[in-house]
Amino acid sequence: MSKMLTPAETANWLKEHDNLLIITHRRPDGETLGSAGALAQGLREYGKTVYLLYNPEATPRYFKYVEDYSAPDDFEYDHIIAVDTATTGLFPENALKYKDDISLCIDHHRSNTLYAGLVCLDADCAACGEIIYDILMDISGSISSLTAERLYVALSTDTGCFSFGNTTANTLYIASKLVEAGASNKEINKKLFRTKTHSRVKIEGMLTSGLEYYFDDRVAIAAITREMMETTGADEDDIDDIAALPGSVEGVCIGITIREMSSPEDCKISVRSRSPYDAQAICAHFGGGGHKLAAGCTIEKTVDEIKVLLLEVLGEIM
Amino acid sequence: MSKMLTPAETANWLKEHDNLLIITHRRPDGETLGSAGALAQGLREYGKTVYLLYNPEATPRYFKYVEDYSAPDDFEYDHIIAVDTATTGLFPENALKYKDDISLCIDHHRSNTLYAGLVCLDADCAACGEIIYDILMDISGSISSLTAERLYVALSTDTGCFSFGNTTANTLYIASKLVEAGASNKEINKKLFRTKTHSRVKIEGMLTSGLEYYFDDRVAIAAITREMMETTGADEDDIDDIAALPGSVEGVCIGITIREMSSPEDCKISVRSRSPYDAQAICAHFGGGGHKLAAGCTIEKTVDEIKVLLLEVLGEIM
Repeated sequence: MSKMLTPAETANWLKEHDNLLIITHRRPDGETLGSAGALAQGLREYGKTVYLLYNPEATPRYFKYVEDYSAPDDFEYDHIIAVDTATTGLFPENALKYKDDISLCIDHHRSNTLYAGLVCLDADCAACGEIIYDILMDISGSISSLTAERLYVALSTDTGCFSFGNTTANTLYIASKLVEAGASNKEINKKLFRTKTHSRVKIEGMLTSGLEYYFDDRVAIAAITREMMETTGADEDDIDDIAALPGSVEGVCIGITIREMSSPEDCKISVRSRSPYDAQAICAHFGGGGHKLAAGCTIEKTVDEIKVLLLEVLGEIM
Repeated sequence: MSKMLTPAETANWLKEHDNLLIITHRRPDGETLGSAGALAQGLREYGKTVYLLYNPEATPRYFKYVEDYSAPDDFEYDHIIAVDTATTGLFPENALKYKDDISLCIDHHRSNTLYAGLVCLDADCAACGEIIYDILMDISGSISSLTAERLYVALSTDTGCFSFGNTTANTLYIASKLVEAGASNKEINKKLFRTKTHSRVKIEGMLTSGLEYYFDDRVAIAAITREMMETTGADEDDIDDIAALPGSVEGVCIGITIREMSSPEDCKISVRSRSPYDAQAICAHFGGGGHKLAAGCTIEKTVDEIKVLLLEVLGEIM
């Protein structure tokens, strides 16, 4: 049974403990790396010995700075902290062995399985970085520019630079404090939100020109073929969040992306919907799952075959 | 000679005057309409009679709410206030006759020509809405949800939803206060920043697939032909800010958009650059102007001829 802590109680616990190892989730993004990096940085400035354990292979090219916090092989931790990680199933490979030994989890996912001894959870926060901010302010009363930089990455990543529906007054307030403390929002925003790689631009162009509309343009379906990935030289980073594209067209209520994976008969389907349409219900037809407005499934058929299947299911809904 | 006022002094002046007509600039965007709408709304709630004068034909479809503030033909104003308008040359047609009769100008453009009797100017503000917020807080001590809604449109428009380099800690702080006051940031962001029209999606696809790169990919040139506009059914709203696209590709230092206007031999060129490259200097070669990082010019030649001319000039610079 986990014990729930407030940020202030978490701050006290952190003050009293040392030699900390922080775990981030399996496919790290700016949010988990920014939150964990900020916690490590803030605690180091307070005099603690802190390292990170993360999945270096899956770390996006923009976040290579986490190497500065990388735990040496001989690091003898006293306590492990998991950040922004809802279940131990999301731990990276190199952290699975610690799954029953997590002292503290700091998270904002309502679905957190309370696997840690102590849990500091606030599901109303858009970003886990908001909780880390409160904790670090409780510890030190101020935030260094480097810590602010990391936290700004966390907040802006999880809110699409404050444009997603999860952005609250508190998110914006903390962001203002981070910029005040020296976070280089101009440079971070340019890099994360206002720059696209050549491959991204090319594949977006292909994807949009191939968009197909159905049911009075309320449904848009896009395909990402293996050939498109090869032609454009796109990698996983390049197509991050590209599944949001079909749903961003005016009037579209259900946006679907079909992506060929290991073969043309192995496709991953991403469905994004607008209320009241239920993406999860659509994917459940094919054994998939997710949230009401964003879900996914895998179908071992070709793109064209999958379109037919999807249109049948959609016909019942639309 | 204009007299400069602080926001507090401006608030006092507004409290003491009534029957106000507010002018917005010729090609109204969310910033000028949001700022003016908020000022009108806030002052009406304080008991004043306030109307707006704007260019209805050029008002983007998203901002039709300004009709609620539209001045009736027989409105007898006592004072005229210009908002977010740097020079009288930017007045809409229906406001030109008032150009020597402006009592107060509230603005954030460093280039303001001080044409009004009283001027409240803060060029460090990303959005004019930040100044309006301070003024309205000085007047009433609080902001209604409707006023907050208008101001949020102003702040988010001028900062690209807080992603542009002009966004300051103060911008984010005020945005947090606006959301706290009831601005529906989720809906506004979805409409303004996370939705693209069919035409926009199509023309973006064409533009990106036709992007040409030069000088080791440091220069990207795009063309928007009359045929592309016709095929996609795009209007001016649909291609708003599309000139930023070539410059958003990773590694590109100078992004150029050539747009066919009234004929294939009448083109408008938009140049966006990254420091140290000077967009203004490039456009000056062709009699154009603008700012260091964003400038424009008109050349009466075909797209292909213009590319040759531009590449000559760029050859000297790159």
